[in-house]
Amino acid sequence: MKLYSYWRSTTSIRVRAALNLKGLDYEIVPVDLVAGVQRSDDYTAVNPGQGVPALVLDDGTVLTQSLAILDYLDETYPEPPLLPEGAVARAQARAAAHQIALDVHPVNNLKVVNRLKALGHDQDVAVDWMKHWMSEGFTAFDRLIRPDTPFCFGDTPGLADLCLVAQVYNARRWDFDLAAFPRLGEIDARCQQIPAIASAMPDQQPDAP
Amino acid sequence: MKLYSYWRSTTSIRVRAALNLKGLDYEIVPVDLVAGVQRSDDYTAVNPGQGVPALVLDDGTVLTQSLAILDYLDETYPEPPLLPEGAVARAQARAAAHQIALDVHPVNNLKVVNRLKALGHDQDVAVDWMKHWMSEGFTAFDRLIRPDTPFCFGDTPGLADLCLVAQVYNARRWDFDLAAFPRLGEIDARCQQIPAIASAMPDQQPDAP
Repeated sequence: MKLYSYWRSTTSIRVRAALNLKGLDYEIVPVDLVAGVQRSDDYTAVNPGQGVPALVLDDGTVLTQSLAILDYLDETYPEPPLLPEGAVARAQARAAAHQIALDVHPVNNLKVVNRLKALGHDQDVAVDWMKHWMSEGFTAFDRLIRPDTPFCFGDTPGLADLCLVAQVYNARRWDFDLAAFPRLGEIDARCQQIPAIASAMPDQQPDAP
Repeated sequence: MKLYSYWRSTTSIRVRAALNLKGLDYEIVPVDLVAGVQRSDDYTAVNPGQGVPALVLDDGTVLTQSLAILDYLDETYPEPPLLPEGAVARAQARAAAHQIALDVHPVNNLKVVNRLKALGHDQDVAVDWMKHWMSEGFTAFDRLIRPDTPFCFGDTPGLADLCLVAQVYNARRWDFDLAAFPRLGEIDARCQQIPAIASAMPDQQPDAP
């Protein structure tokens, strides 16, 4: 498999960590989002959504959208599972993950922040914008996960944890104060002890500067 | 089951249509997003994410986040299915749905548009902002669905179609010109012929003015 990825993209972090947890081999193809490579004709032919990640299967099929890729991986390579057993437990784990993946990440995406700047706002306003959505999102996430398990929903990291570690990386990048969310900091620290997750983080990527 | 819902919310449309397609009984509890009821302590206790929809099961369990609810419904009440058979086909249907559910809706959400206005922008700028993301999102969606099926991925409406009809409603609300997307208009028209979908649309809701 081949993964179109950008080192700092939080959606790329999620998929790299899942591929690693499941012990799958893949080749990273870096896409430089800051240089705008994702909007090139060549890349748009791969992913009409012009984003990363995109996963190319061995038969050439391209899968896009990180959450859809994670579901595919979990269906196709079930061990270790990314979701708990039981339809209600799965729905609750998905809901927490979506609190970050739908209510924080899309609004703080590079293309959205660039649009904000095109409206005349400077970097300080953009950073405040990002922190606002992180504050709201982490507050809800903290209330949606289980209060007493090593990871968000059990004894092993899953979908919600992968969304969390990626967003925590982004939070630190923008000096967002995580002190109000001690449980989230603890889960992130526990995740970073797992080589499959640690090696998915931005600084470990071939396109990291 | 009880569904916390707002008549014009596109995420509520998706879940109402799925409940109807699967022939499930539910009671609508309107949440007035414009009046800010979603931020009340009472509602935050139901849904820490302070959004709609939220589905309350008969045992009192609350499920939040529309896509997580749709997955729950599809797992628990498999007929008619919202996703095609086969892991790759499912991933492609999810990816198209997410092109709207993650790349358009969250950025055009009421709370995001209100934040834009708090930065000093007027309604015209807000509408341009919404149209920009719809244009990008519909363009990608159009390339991610199958080119030749009655609905986005087959002979019956599924996850991608439900995301589409809700976003098309929103597009018309803001006078977004859909002429560049004839296939999307055709699929929407076909969906509106299905009573389960037509009755999920905003004007049919108890809280519609």
